[in-house]
Amino acid sequence: MEFVGEALRKLREKRPLVHNITNYVVMNETANALLAIGASPVMAHAVGEIEEMVSIADALVINIGTLDGRWIESMELAVRAASRLGKPVVLDPVGAGATKLRTSTAMRLIELGDISVIRGNFGEISALLGEHGKTRGVDSAHFSAEDASELAAAASERFGSVVAVTGPVDFVSDGKTTYAVENGHELLGRVTGTGCMATAITGAFLAVEDPLKASISALVAFEVAAEKASEEAPYPGSFHAKLYDWLYRITPELLVERARVRRV
Amino acid sequence: MEFVGEALRKLREKRPLVHNITNYVVMNETANALLAIGASPVMAHAVGEIEEMVSIADALVINIGTLDGRWIESMELAVRAASRLGKPVVLDPVGAGATKLRTSTAMRLIELGDISVIRGNFGEISALLGEHGKTRGVDSAHFSAEDASELAAAASERFGSVVAVTGPVDFVSDGKTTYAVENGHELLGRVTGTGCMATAITGAFLAVEDPLKASISALVAFEVAAEKASEEAPYPGSFHAKLYDWLYRITPELLVERARVRRV
Amino acid sequence: MEFVGEALRKLREKRPLVHNITNYVVMNETANALLAIGASPVMAHAVGEIEEMVSIADALVINIGTLDGRWIESMELAVRAASRLGKPVVLDPVGAGATKLRTSTAMRLIELGDISVIRGNFGEISALLGEHGKTRGVDSAHFSAEDASELAAAASERFGSVVAVTGPVDFVSDGKTTYAVENGHELLGRVTGTGCMATAITGAFLAVEDPLKASISALVAFEVAAEKASEEAPYPGSFHAKLYDWLYRITPELLVERARVRRV
Repeated sequence: MEFVGEALRKLREKRPLVHNITNYVVMNETANALLAIGASPVMAHAVGEIEEMVSIADALVINIGTLDGRWIESMELAVRAASRLGKPVVLDPVGAGATKLRTSTAMRLIELGDISVIRGNFGEISALLGEHGKTRGVDSAHFSAEDASELAAAASERFGSVVAVTGPVDFVSDGKTTYAVENGHELLGRVTGTGCMATAITGAFLAVEDPLKASISALVAFEVAAEKASEEAPYPGSFHAKLYDWLYRITPELLVERARVRRV
Repeated sequence: MEFVGEALRKLREKRPLVHNITNYVVMNETANALLAIGASPVMAHAVGEIEEMVSIADALVINIGTLDGRWIESMELAVRAASRLGKPVVLDPVGAGATKLRTSTAMRLIELGDISVIRGNFGEISALLGEHGKTRGVDSAHFSAEDASELAAAASERFGSVVAVTGPVDFVSDGKTTYAVENGHELLGRVTGTGCMATAITGAFLAVEDPLKASISALVAFEVAAEKASEEAPYPGSFHAKLYDWLYRITPELLVERARVRRV
Repeated sequence: MEFVGEALRKLREKRPLVHNITNYVVMNETANALLAIGASPVMAHAVGEIEEMVSIADALVINIGTLDGRWIESMELAVRAASRLGKPVVLDPVGAGATKLRTSTAMRLIELGDISVIRGNFGEISALLGEHGKTRGVDSAHFSAEDASELAAAASERFGSVVAVTGPVDFVSDGKTTYAVENGHELLGRVTGTGCMATAITGAFLAVEDPLKASISALVAFEVAAEKASEEAPYPGSFHAKLYDWLYRITPELLVERARVRRV
C-alpha cells in the first residue's frame, strides 16, 4: 500500500481547494480537518456563486446532513457544474434511510451527475440500494463484515461510483475489486462528524488520485490519525483536539507503516 | 438523590435518539455533548422530514437561538408532531426578552403542544411570564436566589411544564415542589452553548425519566462533569475539551456522590 | 503602544454585547473567542429582530463567509440600523474576489452605511478595490509587505473606513497613518476562522476605542494569544483549544510587553 503515502505527499504539495456543501453540524470540523491535513477548504452554497466556486475548486464535497429545499437546490447545481467541468465529487448521504427526503435527495444527486465516490455507513448505503435499512439517525445498524463488503461491491456496480461502506472495518469497492481498511478507533463513534470528516478528506485526495486510491488513502490517513490521537487522549473531547493534531502530524511513512488494507 | 445515578444508568443503556432543532452556534457542541454522555443525536429541520424524524426519535429538543421564519415553521411542526406522538419535548427559549420575535416564538411553541421541560436563564424565563426581563443577549441579569426559585415555581404553574431556571444555583420546579441544584463551575459562563448543552442533555434524560427527574439529572450530570473538567483545566478552551471528556467519564456513583440537590 | 493594554482593560470592564451576523463555519468559534476575551456575543439574523438586536448591542460584526440572498438582506438591514443608531460596524469580506456575489455584496454593504473597520486578507481587500485579486477561496495570494501596506492605505482612503490587511504582517491604516502589526503565529493558518475571530474581536474593541486603536488592539490581543498558545501546543487541534485559554489569560501588561507595532 505504498500509494497511500504517495497520495498524502501529493495532497500536501498541491494543497487542493476543496469546495464543501455540507451540513451545519460539521462545517467547522470538516474545514479544520482539511486545513490540518494540508488542503484548503471553502464553503459556499448560494445559488448565485455555486458555478464560479466549483470552477475554481479542485474537488467538490456534498453532504446532505442538514438538508432542506434550498440547500438541495444548491447541491443539484453544484453536482451539475462539477460534472460539466470534470471536477471530482464525493457524496455523503447522511441519514439516507432515516427519512424519505434524505434517501430521495441522495438518489437524485447520484442520477444527476458523475459522483466519483459515495461514502456512508451500512444503513445509509443499504437505503440507497432500496433495501430497508434500519438506519437509526446517523448510526449504523447491525451487520456482518461480509454483508458490508458485498454491499460496497453491489452499490458500486449499481451507481458506477467507488463506494466506501465505513464501520468497524471499512469496505471500499470500485465494483470489480473490494478492499478492507481495518484502521480506526472506537472513539470516532463518540465525536460527531467523524464520518463527514472522512468524506471531506476523501474530497481532498480526489484532487490528486483516482477515486479508488483516493478513497482508501483518505480512510487510512484519517483513521491512522485517530489511532495516534487515541494513544495520547483516551476520552472524546481531548481525542477530538488531538485528531486535528495528528491529521497535521501524519507522514507518508507513518501511513505506509500503519495502513491495514487488504484485498477482499 | 439516588435517582440521578439511576437515570444516567438508564440513559446509557437505552442510548436514546435525540432529535434537535437548535441554533447554528451550538449544533456541533450539543451533538458532541449528547454523544459523549451516551445518547445519539440527530439534527433535522426540513419541513419535509420533520414528522418522520420525530417519529423515530425518543425525545425532541427545541432551541430558538438563531431562529428565523423558516426555522420557526419547522419548530412548530416538530412540537405538534411530538405532542401527537407522545414524545417528550424540552424547550430552550434562548434570548427570550431580548427581542419580541424570540419571546413570541417561545410563547407560541408553549401554547402549541405539550412541552415537558422549559430550561432558560432568569431573564429568559421572566420574559415568558411577561415580566420585563433585563435580558441582555443571552446573559442573565441580576437577581436573588429567592427570586429565581419563585420564578421557576410560577412559570411551571403557568405553563404546566417543569421549568428549570439555571444560573449560579439552578432551580427546577414542577409547580408543586422546587429543587435547587448547586453544582457547576463559573467557567461554564466562558464557553458558548453550555446552557444549550444542558438543554440537549435534558432531552436525553427525558427519554428515560419523568420531566422533573430528567431535568434535575441532566443539570447534575452536566455540572458535575464541568466541576471535574475545571479541576483538570482552569481556562475555557481546555476546559471545553475536558467537558466532553467528563460527560463520557462520569459514572452513576460519581453523580450520587457529588450531587448537591436540595428541596427548597 | 500603551493604548493596547488600556483597550483590553476597558473591554473587560465594559463587557460589550457584540452582535454577529456571520458565517456558519465560524459562529461557534467567534462566540467562544468573544466570551474568552471578556465580551458577550449574540448571533441573530432574522429580519424581524435585526433592528432590536442592533439597538441593544454595543457593536456589530458582519462576515459574508457563507452568504446567500436571505442573509444578505439581514446584513443590509443590520448595517443600515447600525448607521442610524451610531453603532460601530466591522466588516469581514470573506472570499471577496473569489466570486462576483461576494465582491458585490461587500461593496454594497460598504456603500450602504458607515463601516468603521474592514478586515480582510490581501486578495479580499484587493478585490474590493477592483484589482483582480488572486483570491483562492479564503487564502491569501502572494504579495510583498510593501504591497500590503499600500493596499491598506489606498482602501482606507477609498472607503473612508479603517482597513486592516492581515497576513504574515498586518497593516492597519486610517488613510493618513499606517501601522504594521508583527505579532502572530503560522499555526493560525491551520485553524479555520482565525481571521473571522480577529474580526469579531475587533468588534468588541470598537465598543471601547476608536476604529484605528480598536483594530490594532484586536490584532495584537489575538495574535499575542496565538503566540502564547503555540508555546504550549505546537499542533493545530491543541493550539486551537489553547488559543481560547490565552484570549482569557492575556493581560494588559502582557500585551504592552509583547506588542510588535510600528508606524510604517
